[in-house]
Amino acid sequence: MKDFGQNRPEPQPMAIALEEANLAFDRGEVPVGAVIADADGKIVARDGNRTLELKDPTAHAEMLVIRAACKSVASERLGGLDLYVTLEPCPMCASAISFARIRRVYYGALDEKSGGVDHGPRIFAQGSCHHAPEVYGGIRESESAALLRRFFRARR
Amino acid sequence: MKDFGQNRPEPQPMAIALEEANLAFDRGEVPVGAVIADADGKIVARDGNRTLELKDPTAHAEMLVIRAACKSVASERLGGLDLYVTLEPCPMCASAISFARIRRVYYGALDEKSGGVDHGPRIFAQGSCHHAPEVYGGIRESESAALLRRFFRARR
Repeated sequence: MKDFGQNRPEPQPMAIALEEANLAFDRGEVPVGAVIADADGKIVARDGNRTLELKDPTAHAEMLVIRAACKSVASERLGGLDLYVTLEPCPMCASAISFARIRRVYYGALDEKSGGVDHGPRIFAQGSCHHAPEVYGGIRESESAALLRRFFRARR
Repeated sequence: MKDFGQNRPEPQPMAIALEEANLAFDRGEVPVGAVIADADGKIVARDGNRTLELKDPTAHAEMLVIRAACKSVASERLGGLDLYVTLEPCPMCASAISFARIRRVYYGALDEKSGGVDHGPRIFAQGSCHHAPEVYGGIRESESAALLRRFFRARR
């Protein structure tokens, strides 16, 4: 078990998201991990990217934890819950986050190329976005980004 | 069995998508239906919106057929296949369509409020969009739109 630095001020669920990203890396998936937790940091769902394993282009880490958390709370709304993810969500995941009424999004690495929160379509800033969560980017960014760099370097 | 006008020039899979939208209506779901078909119009997957039934905010008709078609062809890519949907896809579904490498999108009613193809973030026109399908909007628009109007009027 790696020590992700429990004594740091960052929210604990991001350490779990990083664990999930590492597990995704070990499965040969783009290493992104996500967690849904309540306001006290209690974990409701955790998972990593499984698009290759499940042969499902929608199986991004965020989508999997949103679906699992909805199942867990028996509702298609997750108001009051927060999402932690190691990479800036893409437009698909950002839209799903909005539909699920997630309270806050904490993300790790910025994704200038494919991100949909602080880049590209900036989904939460669109007039058509009916619910925009609070967003905190760059949480444990360097670890998330280093893992992604290691993955893409190995694949070249 | 309703006659959706098989002799009209519109692609036959849209008639099936309209059937699925009607079935969604009968389930109390926002009435949107979708089909994935090959270039000859052979149906690979068909379904309607099930967000309430599945308690899953990601269970839009398009997402369900993409996931079912990927399962059917055992791949996370659907190159060469086309998607028919009775309403302009939202940004979540548009992104999933791009990830799945769908060849063409035929959609019915325009969605000025929540659409993500020809409105709002216009996902396929974003520089970050790695695959943009051909898009044909307004196919059997009036029937799709009338069904949606009937649904929302009944809920008011």
